[in-house]
Amino acid sequence: MAEALRVGIAGLGTVGASVVRMLQNKASELTRQCGRQIAPVAVSARDRTRDRGIDLGNAQWFDDPVTLAQSSEIEVFVELIGGEDGVALASVRAALEAGRHVVTANKALLSKHGVQLAAIAEKRGVLLNYEAAVAGGIPVIKTMREALAGNHVNRVFGIMNGTCNYILTRMEADGLSFEDCLKDAQKLGYAEADPTFDIEGHDTAHKLSILTSLAFGCRISADDIYMEGISNITQADIRAASELGYRIKLLGVAQKTESGIEQRVHPTMVPVSSVIAQVHGVTNAVAVETDMLGELLLTGPGAGGDATASAVIGDVADIAKSRPGFQHGPVFGWPARELAPYKRARMRAHAGGYFIRLTVHDRTGVFAAIAKRMADNDISLESIVQHGDASEEAHKTVILVTHETMEASVRKAVDGITRDGHLTTKPQVIRIERAA
Amino acid sequence: MAEALRVGIAGLGTVGASVVRMLQNKASELTRQCGRQIAPVAVSARDRTRDRGIDLGNAQWFDDPVTLAQSSEIEVFVELIGGEDGVALASVRAALEAGRHVVTANKALLSKHGVQLAAIAEKRGVLLNYEAAVAGGIPVIKTMREALAGNHVNRVFGIMNGTCNYILTRMEADGLSFEDCLKDAQKLGYAEADPTFDIEGHDTAHKLSILTSLAFGCRISADDIYMEGISNITQADIRAASELGYRIKLLGVAQKTESGIEQRVHPTMVPVSSVIAQVHGVTNAVAVETDMLGELLLTGPGAGGDATASAVIGDVADIAKSRPGFQHGPVFGWPARELAPYKRARMRAHAGGYFIRLTVHDRTGVFAAIAKRMADNDISLESIVQHGDASEEAHKTVILVTHETMEASVRKAVDGITRDGHLTTKPQVIRIERAA
Repeated sequence: MAEALRVGIAGLGTVGASVVRMLQNKASELTRQCGRQIAPVAVSARDRTRDRGIDLGNAQWFDDPVTLAQSSEIEVFVELIGGEDGVALASVRAALEAGRHVVTANKALLSKHGVQLAAIAEKRGVLLNYEAAVAGGIPVIKTMREALAGNHVNRVFGIMNGTCNYILTRMEADGLSFEDCLKDAQKLGYAEADPTFDIEGHDTAHKLSILTSLAFGCRISADDIYMEGISNITQADIRAASELGYRIKLLGVAQKTESGIEQRVHPTMVPVSSVIAQVHGVTNAVAVETDMLGELLLTGPGAGGDATASAVIGDVADIAKSRPGFQHGPVFGWPARELAPYKRARMRAHAGGYFIRLTVHDRTGVFAAIAKRMADNDISLESIVQHGDASEEAHKTVILVTHETMEASVRKAVDGITRDGHLTTKPQVIRIERAA
Repeated sequence: MAEALRVGIAGLGTVGASVVRMLQNKASELTRQCGRQIAPVAVSARDRTRDRGIDLGNAQWFDDPVTLAQSSEIEVFVELIGGEDGVALASVRAALEAGRHVVTANKALLSKHGVQLAAIAEKRGVLLNYEAAVAGGIPVIKTMREALAGNHVNRVFGIMNGTCNYILTRMEADGLSFEDCLKDAQKLGYAEADPTFDIEGHDTAHKLSILTSLAFGCRISADDIYMEGISNITQADIRAASELGYRIKLLGVAQKTESGIEQRVHPTMVPVSSVIAQVHGVTNAVAVETDMLGELLLTGPGAGGDATASAVIGDVADIAKSRPGFQHGPVFGWPARELAPYKRARMRAHAGGYFIRLTVHDRTGVFAAIAKRMADNDISLESIVQHGDASEEAHKTVILVTHETMEASVRKAVDGITRDGHLTTKPQVIRIERAA
């Protein structure tokens, strides 16, 4: 049997501790599956004294992850430190430059420095695996990077933030407000004390930026992502969606259009009969639409220590199965130096259906004025629902669902309606997304 | 750049023609992704003169696929002939013995001879890839064989036959009989003139047998699969399922139990709120439940020339990315010689919920007699629905949904009820399956 694969693990939080535990508990299975042992021979973390509920055995302790990354004691450096810069970046770069394979779960790092790190890995002929960085335990990186070779991706989209999906699921199931659901999510440990990063879409954007590069062979560009969070979604939206046969999900969507690549993160109406609409709670789902396959949807746990560790271990096992002289495919599917510059499509040119919810004064001519603004902007309507507001008799709710139209037209029409002075509150506009 | 990978393709039906076309149309992308060209240098098919709508270019023609398999002109033999024995078996075996990598879409072949062929591949140090053999374009083999390394699988189940799922979907959506939906499926080319192989579950069983081996590290044993088809599913079942919050799917299920491994293919009630219940029409879906991940669900096109070709090309690309000296993981996740003998769990020991639909004479005491038979067999009931049959006033329908119980108890109870003489028609029993 080949020699053991020596692995160093930096970062012993929930995921790191689970990786160490699983490598120990599953040592004999992994050895049989990989044809060699996977040995966690070295670790690094901030606090040496903390009880993590794991036995570090004979693993060598490094105070400095960069020193661990460069150590000749290891062949694989597993980075579970987190953060887009700082010691995570320094140690991953050091490991690659020293000719070590790297496995990381760090979406922020890859979103910002992925292409540069991929170039180093490819130059040194080592692997940079990052399955755990996007949608936790769901094998979306392996699928896009390996299984879909030769496919042209038209669109990739998904539910990639468990916090937001938990909140939206609870809002619909229990009729609670966004704020109450957020509080519950915080109590259950699904949301941070400062939830901005999750609920405003930043976390989804990081993950989406990586999938975009894999999908379209372009450089990663998280800064070019159009982003709207879920904090302004109300019960009125949830109920109206349900009435019209839709469900609201926070989606990250990347698609190729004539003018470039659209990357967007926003609350989205998906048909309630679609598979992705049934993805509830903290579960994640990623759909990939290609020329040869049509739509492929992967659903599963997007976070959690063991689920994330599963992806990390799958990445390490792939390295263990390879042998010296082996060259894997490129880090982002295409050689890093050949990744195309990112060409951003303008959000105003986005074509799609729109849900528009308006609260209007209950007076003659309002409806006609709204209809005229839509017609003037060449927007054709799929459905119109009008409700009296029982609690506030002077107001009415008008809900419009458009056929495919341009974002610019919708903005113009809604601006016009606002200027007409018929609205009692800010208009709500939610994009509709096709889904199988 | 490395030399081109020379590929020989045997079988030029829909899938084979699509593979040739895609390798030509996507040559430049595949070369960039794999770091070398993939060249279809040789082909074999029964009829040399048939117009397949593809340009075979300079590919060498072989009348005999076995000769192609052994030719030193190729490094990879792609078997798309079909059939569990005969020339498919002979050519795959010849290719492996001659040291060629093999890619196949042939589930019947693997279901019957997979372990033996894997042993040859592993001995010769070549790859045997078969993503297209199960669930078409869905990367379930790659996921189970690679991404889930170290995971203990508890259960794998799925919708793996598009014909059956199309029929069941139409029966529910349009209120049509099984026979009418089958006729439509035949008209649309979703079902064969002799549909037995699909609708009685044989096709699903072949696929399931392969997943069982990957899941549990055991030898393939399709003969040990319990099988019931969908031909006796009626509108009464579909409507009752819907009323009780379920939907009927033909599932293949493999799970570990205390007494061994259960492999079963049968119509199944899944909760209508589960993701898999939303998988409609010819779409396939496979769920894998593991200790680290929980439930992972992959959904996508399970058949069709291009979708199947996508899986074949992904397999070939994996070989192109590898280099001499590279050893992949074992064919079925564990080395073929270490696969455990298959230990069959008895179907009578199956534990689960059951849906039981009885048509009874409308007379005093029937209901009490049924309830007594259930109680006598320690079966506790989750719900009971009783309907008068408007068209036949002397009959009533009784629908029972049980809590988890043993198959043996259900059989005994239903046999007892039948012997009591209260039934006007054969009882219908459908198993219920948990699904996320």
